[in-house]
Amino acid sequence: MSLSEQHVRFDALQQRIEEVLDQWLPPADHNPGRLHESMRYSVLGGGKRVRPLLVYAAAEATGARPERVDGCAAAVELVHVYSLIHDDLPAMDDDDLRRGKPTNHKAFDEATAILAGDALQALAFHILAVDPQLPESAATRIEMIRILAEAAGSRGMAGGQAIDLAATGRSLTLPELEEMHVRKTGALIHASVLMGALGGAERGDARLQALHRFAHDIGLAFQIQDDILDETGDTEQLGKQAGADRALNKPTYPAVIGLDASREEVELLHDRALQALEDFGPEADLLRAVGDWIVQRTH
Amino acid sequence: MSLSEQHVRFDALQQRIEEVLDQWLPPADHNPGRLHESMRYSVLGGGKRVRPLLVYAAAEATGARPERVDGCAAAVELVHVYSLIHDDLPAMDDDDLRRGKPTNHKAFDEATAILAGDALQALAFHILAVDPQLPESAATRIEMIRILAEAAGSRGMAGGQAIDLAATGRSLTLPELEEMHVRKTGALIHASVLMGALGGAERGDARLQALHRFAHDIGLAFQIQDDILDETGDTEQLGKQAGADRALNKPTYPAVIGLDASREEVELLHDRALQALEDFGPEADLLRAVGDWIVQRTH
Repeated sequence: MSLSEQHVRFDALQQRIEEVLDQWLPPADHNPGRLHESMRYSVLGGGKRVRPLLVYAAAEATGARPERVDGCAAAVELVHVYSLIHDDLPAMDDDDLRRGKPTNHKAFDEATAILAGDALQALAFHILAVDPQLPESAATRIEMIRILAEAAGSRGMAGGQAIDLAATGRSLTLPELEEMHVRKTGALIHASVLMGALGGAERGDARLQALHRFAHDIGLAFQIQDDILDETGDTEQLGKQAGADRALNKPTYPAVIGLDASREEVELLHDRALQALEDFGPEADLLRAVGDWIVQRTH
Repeated sequence: MSLSEQHVRFDALQQRIEEVLDQWLPPADHNPGRLHESMRYSVLGGGKRVRPLLVYAAAEATGARPERVDGCAAAVELVHVYSLIHDDLPAMDDDDLRRGKPTNHKAFDEATAILAGDALQALAFHILAVDPQLPESAATRIEMIRILAEAAGSRGMAGGQAIDLAATGRSLTLPELEEMHVRKTGALIHASVLMGALGGAERGDARLQALHRFAHDIGLAFQIQDDILDETGDTEQLGKQAGADRALNKPTYPAVIGLDASREEVELLHDRALQALEDFGPEADLLRAVGDWIVQRTH
């Protein structure tokens, strides 16, 4: 896929998910308006939409049309955004800036930010339960819910954030750091690929195994690249405070193994992720392109 | 059902849900241990278990055995406990005492309390997705997930809490107060009855309509009784700070319509709730007993 073709496709899908999210979010003029406004504030109009892109790309790789996984794309993004809102709270990372604008609790207040996150998580599961366009098989729908719940919970994203908080100011071994990353970011990236893949493949389909391997490697590569960018990027481009992790004395790949070794690790994981897709034809080109973008992005 | 029989049955079911919750909660010695410990701290060993009792009682009313709805009972209690943990945070109600012991953020810390709540919500949906004992029909399972997600979200519990926060220090009209209560507490009470009922009834079953009416009235009665107890109970018996609502200048039924009228309203709702069950025989005796207990309890 050429870069310009990739640009056009990403653009179209990013617009698509924006509309899907807009439709699922409660209107700001419905009671309680301030809560709904705050949910919409953090979800709409920003973000790279990496997880929805992975959902759509994995669906395409298994031959499913995007409308079959609109609900999955929305659900993973809502879980991601809720985690950002909570992670930014004063009791957690205490960040003022996110996606280039004030964080939710700065724009609203802490109580509203906590509740907005809570309500977004519930909305994610609500969508998976009711979206009429998801695959007809109720068993597939339940499998999607299982994957998302596991990725979001204490053995996934929430657990990863807890490990992260506990590790701040301490030094981690490489396996500990990897475990933290695999849970904190990897779990939801992984879930995005698997949920999208269920758009066109049923449980037991051999393609799911290959996509599972792709998802694991690209998820870890994503987080290492994030660590690298926190070290080398600038605040304006990142849309959040550059060097924030270092300032908080958080364990990162560059801090533990150095910048060069971190970059090599990203390359290695990227290669391995692409190899996992070797039995796929052009139907996985979009997924390959999202993988490329994840490791080559500069913000 | 005699009072002693009621006591024996409640006791057995409260022990049952304690064991069910214990089995679903991640062990405290699994990483991240502090997070898991904090989840277990708030969930286990306390609480009246009103919502699980309603689940089991509604299941019995539709002829289902308790193991069919163990997962539902656990899920509603986990959502309830997560909401207590978040509501108690300094940015929300700022409570130090809950169920007779320090609140989660006092016993651990704010970040852990936020994450514990988040992870408990995810666990609730995880259980509904994977518990092998739930009704075999995948459609019924999805209906349970839909009901819980709707009850937990911005149109249910989280929305009710947002309305509550926005109303603190303001005076509400009776309809506004009712809407707040119906969402904040009523939605999950309602969900508990409906999810339990799905243990033995499929969508479209006429009994669900009657249980729906019972659930609405008993849910509102529950919250008004809570308001009354906050006004008249003592801290030791309540296990939380008595008069806390008044101190925070929160709108309550006694504040808006007075204590006597509040008690009459509870009676009225209780009578109506029991009428909704008039077509049921002894299979609904447990549900009637839970209804009685909800309005007659002193803590």
